[in-house]
Amino acid sequence: MRLTVAQLARRIGAELVAKAGDAERPISSVGPVETAGADEVTFLADERHKASLAESGAGAVIVGGCIEGVERPQLVVKNVNSALIDALKIFAPKLKPPSEGVDSTARIGRDVKLGKGVAVEANVAIADGVEIGENTVIGSGCKIGENSIIGANCRLDCNVVVYHNCRLGSNVIIQANTTIGSTGFGYSFINGSHRLIPHDGGVVIEDFVEIGANCCVDRAKFGNTIIGAGTKIDNLVQIAHNVVIGKCCLIAALAGVSGSCRLGDGVVLGGQVGLADNIEIGAGTMIGAQAGVMTSVGSGRQLAWTPAIERKEALRIVGLSLRLPKMAEQLKQLGKRLDRLEAAEDHKE
Amino acid sequence: MRLTVAQLARRIGAELVAKAGDAERPISSVGPVETAGADEVTFLADERHKASLAESGAGAVIVGGCIEGVERPQLVVKNVNSALIDALKIFAPKLKPPSEGVDSTARIGRDVKLGKGVAVEANVAIADGVEIGENTVIGSGCKIGENSIIGANCRLDCNVVVYHNCRLGSNVIIQANTTIGSTGFGYSFINGSHRLIPHDGGVVIEDFVEIGANCCVDRAKFGNTIIGAGTKIDNLVQIAHNVVIGKCCLIAALAGVSGSCRLGDGVVLGGQVGLADNIEIGAGTMIGAQAGVMTSVGSGRQLAWTPAIERKEALRIVGLSLRLPKMAEQLKQLGKRLDRLEAAEDHKE
Amino acid sequence: MRLTVAQLARRIGAELVAKAGDAERPISSVGPVETAGADEVTFLADERHKASLAESGAGAVIVGGCIEGVERPQLVVKNVNSALIDALKIFAPKLKPPSEGVDSTARIGRDVKLGKGVAVEANVAIADGVEIGENTVIGSGCKIGENSIIGANCRLDCNVVVYHNCRLGSNVIIQANTTIGSTGFGYSFINGSHRLIPHDGGVVIEDFVEIGANCCVDRAKFGNTIIGAGTKIDNLVQIAHNVVIGKCCLIAALAGVSGSCRLGDGVVLGGQVGLADNIEIGAGTMIGAQAGVMTSVGSGRQLAWTPAIERKEALRIVGLSLRLPKMAEQLKQLGKRLDRLEAAEDHKE
Repeated sequence: MRLTVAQLARRIGAELVAKAGDAERPISSVGPVETAGADEVTFLADERHKASLAESGAGAVIVGGCIEGVERPQLVVKNVNSALIDALKIFAPKLKPPSEGVDSTARIGRDVKLGKGVAVEANVAIADGVEIGENTVIGSGCKIGENSIIGANCRLDCNVVVYHNCRLGSNVIIQANTTIGSTGFGYSFINGSHRLIPHDGGVVIEDFVEIGANCCVDRAKFGNTIIGAGTKIDNLVQIAHNVVIGKCCLIAALAGVSGSCRLGDGVVLGGQVGLADNIEIGAGTMIGAQAGVMTSVGSGRQLAWTPAIERKEALRIVGLSLRLPKMAEQLKQLGKRLDRLEAAEDHKE
Repeated sequence: MRLTVAQLARRIGAELVAKAGDAERPISSVGPVETAGADEVTFLADERHKASLAESGAGAVIVGGCIEGVERPQLVVKNVNSALIDALKIFAPKLKPPSEGVDSTARIGRDVKLGKGVAVEANVAIADGVEIGENTVIGSGCKIGENSIIGANCRLDCNVVVYHNCRLGSNVIIQANTTIGSTGFGYSFINGSHRLIPHDGGVVIEDFVEIGANCCVDRAKFGNTIIGAGTKIDNLVQIAHNVVIGKCCLIAALAGVSGSCRLGDGVVLGGQVGLADNIEIGAGTMIGAQAGVMTSVGSGRQLAWTPAIERKEALRIVGLSLRLPKMAEQLKQLGKRLDRLEAAEDHKE
Repeated sequence: MRLTVAQLARRIGAELVAKAGDAERPISSVGPVETAGADEVTFLADERHKASLAESGAGAVIVGGCIEGVERPQLVVKNVNSALIDALKIFAPKLKPPSEGVDSTARIGRDVKLGKGVAVEANVAIADGVEIGENTVIGSGCKIGENSIIGANCRLDCNVVVYHNCRLGSNVIIQANTTIGSTGFGYSFINGSHRLIPHDGGVVIEDFVEIGANCCVDRAKFGNTIIGAGTKIDNLVQIAHNVVIGKCCLIAALAGVSGSCRLGDGVVLGGQVGLADNIEIGAGTMIGAQAGVMTSVGSGRQLAWTPAIERKEALRIVGLSLRLPKMAEQLKQLGKRLDRLEAAEDHKE
């Protein structure tokens, strides 16, 4: 794909501010400001970084407002991030579209319903009673368990495993090697051994959820483990049985959400965060990376540290921890000064 | 499946305490006390929560002893958890039993021995010399390496990979996308590069071990990595080379057990716990979530924090850490008071 | 494989120090000093542990220099670790070599180039335009995306997924269930929902890189996520989009490297380490297990703790944290002593 600056401006709905002739420069990809070349468009998401533009070799720049003194063509848009996504899609490397239909190496069970435009790739195994919505792509090596239902326009990448009785909405993306609907880690210790509590519930993944690679989402004991619409999950994340996650949450890599936790809408968990089981995290609360949350937390808070406390307080505690050597020395000095005063006092008596 | 309350009581060996007529109420599933409906049986694992029963819509309740003032039918059993497991099994959604025999898309090597009732599903690859015991189910997409031996009544879920020369006992469950027998992370730095130390040992997984999804169990350099009978492992857990785990341990999600660690029987590791390599954890010791254990630990202890110390002590340290701002202020005040006293003393002299 | 001690010495280039007759003892494997039997060779990597030799049942020992008073045959080499690797390779259990050619169950796209000696095992799916170098083994169930290029002498174990437009060098090992080239976790919040930023970059994995099982390496937004030559990565590790890792780094299990981090050559990350996004770790720096690194770090340093600080300082802080109960008590005592002095002072006035 190769467009002129002017053509690109039209495609992303930008106002073009350029010197005569510059509008015809050819652009063939998007690049970061540091490395973009003459045939690349770059972007300025934050005007405070505008100094970096001066040294950039980019052929054009997407900006949120016209910037004085910039020589190269500016594509002025209302929302730089949104226009950037549009530009990236225009210049995306062209891949072969998935082949509609069922590959001859796939194993399809009985009573399976496949919507129009569905692609089932090589070595897929789909069990009895599965339903798959229109235009969904089931990547090579995926396994879909009995009676699971997958909506329209979904993409399951290679080797994803979905167990039985799981329900995925529309426009869901699950990346490679992720497991949906595994049995939760729930045991009763009876007569000297751990006996597995049957997990007969399911998993419900709502519309527009995106889950990274090598994640696990366990099925519920009763009812469903639920991931709310628009929530995005990074790689290697653990979502335990009976967890209920609200809408538009973000969960970063290697985080672990224990059994029966309830997350409100818009919750953000940093990388390697751990939540104790059966707690509630209020809507909009953000938990910093590596924090461990032991008890329920209200809405709109920013926590960090283990055990998780208000982020500002955590920073203060950590700062004071670093001063512990000094505090120990101060204690010692105060003790000596007291020794002297007490000795003087004794002397007088 | 639909039973009357009386039928269910007989099936789980409960004594039925119910008003005339209530014994014939139909029950078709198990539900938690908060959401159970009139055709569901609920349970009371802990009598302290009996108040919750009053508001429950459940049609019947499994209890450990008859409770006064409860209107609905009570199924009185000796062990509520055990009866609950029985009830869950009775009402479990019916799934198609695995198809005995080898799917036509599976690739089976030479000298493979399959026991009676074994099911080998689609797209499985079994290498030469593998033995699989009676009634074991090898899920779609599993790969079993050369000369590995799997016992009877095991269940390997979809896309599990077992490398060569591994041995699994009977009644073992391995969930989807887990890797058994990968090469450990052992390198020698020789002439400027990291050279892999060959891992020619194996993995031994004893009877009744259950391993979650997307876990890794590395093979040993020499001898075997061993997981003791009845041990249960959650999702996304790392068990490194030459680790020896005792019987009936519990290891929660995202925990990492480093090379050559030795865990006694009944050890419990919380989520995201990390063990340094080559240490020993005594029988029955419990390590709290996110703790980091640097040195060997005796039996029957409860540790937390990084570096892991006695749980009670850890709580005390953490509590005092939260008081650091106050301690810093106290230090300052003591200093000022000393200044005043010293000034007064100087004045007198 | 069975060799005499003398034959083994020749094979690993060792000088043999043995009593008459001992040179003809048969050796058939390598074993650790504690458990090695009469037909096993053991090794002494560190001369300080030479006392352990006295109690060993090993038939011979590989040493870095002849040790006085050791009865059994000594194989004296310059580099014990290197000789150990050689010996392990000699006695490695013999496995069937991979079958050259393409298994009939594999699905191969158009314009795929397979080098001489390539083995493509069962149920593999290789998309259009893929190139695979000489003698590389693509294990059962692997999926290779469009236009990806894999070098010579690589080994991709079972069920590895490589997305499109990734490039692997030569002598690369990727263990089972690992995902290479998944889309990074990069979203823009636009009009009330998280919109995925397209990731059109790729992944470049250089020569002699080894990656464990169940890892994730995300593709870049622009340009490439890069793993430098000779770097070794353990199991369950997360490498986010646009990360650039230098040569000969070591990254232990469950570590997470966030987006756009840059690691110099020879960096070592302990297990469960987390790096904040977009920071730089200087060459040769070692980060202790479970540490969280928030800001860029220079070269050659040893850090620990969260937030990561100099290892020695971290040990001091942790040590003082453990003394917090004592410090709180000291503060209290100092306060009481001051109370007394102040009371005495008041009395005089």
